[in-house]
Amino acid sequence: MTAFRNPVPTVDAVILVPDDRVVLVHRKHPPLGWAIPGGFVDEGEPLEAAATREAAEETGLAVTLLEQFHSYSDPARDPRRHTISTVFLASASGEPRGGDDAAEARSFAWDALPSPIVFDHREILADVRRYLLTGARRRP
Amino acid sequence: MTAFRNPVPTVDAVILVPDDRVVLVHRKHPPLGWAIPGGFVDEGEPLEAAATREAAEETGLAVTLLEQFHSYSDPARDPRRHTISTVFLASASGEPRGGDDAAEARSFAWDALPSPIVFDHREILADVRRYLLTGARRRP
Repeated sequence: MTAFRNPVPTVDAVILVPDDRVVLVHRKHPPLGWAIPGGFVDEGEPLEAAATREAAEETGLAVTLLEQFHSYSDPARDPRRHTISTVFLASASGEPRGGDDAAEARSFAWDALPSPIVFDHREILADVRRYLLTGARRRP
Repeated sequence: MTAFRNPVPTVDAVILVPDDRVVLVHRKHPPLGWAIPGGFVDEGEPLEAAATREAAEETGLAVTLLEQFHSYSDPARDPRRHTISTVFLASASGEPRGGDDAAEARSFAWDALPSPIVFDHREILADVRRYLLTGARRRP
């Protein structure tokens, strides 16, 4: 079967937790490092449902989506293949706990993010941080 | 080949033209009716490039992207299969001219949009109109 080849839709949830902290997960599979919780969107699944599901699977947190932030689509953002990530801002309370593709889930202060952060997630976090501080969104 | 089945990424460009008008295209293929210019994202193509390309192909206009507006992903939004559309706001000058999958391209006043408008494009246009008037974005 020769199918039309298209980028693959994914979601990421930037989970804001009390004391101005953000939840990241340490990936179980390559590329190894810290990442914003997220994953692939299933056929028939709205982006919002995918973001809530992936957040729960990887952090154990029942998140509330605050807003859809931005969709990132640089073909080089994932070394494996071209993915598009629609990023949501979410809030949650409680202690994150790694699960599914996440070996570990922890919250970090914005000025003490861990390293390495994989994919384009450091850039996404910088965009979110700037938005939270100034209200300025990324421009095309 | 049994591939993981995922929604298909698309883009739409809400093209704002002088005198507070918006450009729509009349589709050449079913579902027939008026639509926001747009189409499928190619592998290796950023969303922004796809939006500019599709706008040019279907309207003949060289658009300037103003901002990424919102990604729409209701599985029922396209009767053929599950697509996700990332919608951009764009500006252009000059006369639209139908091409590619568009039989016709015309500009309309916001309070005199044509009918029928296919997919979820009437809802998207209502969201954009509200945003332009009030600054309010769609919430999850």
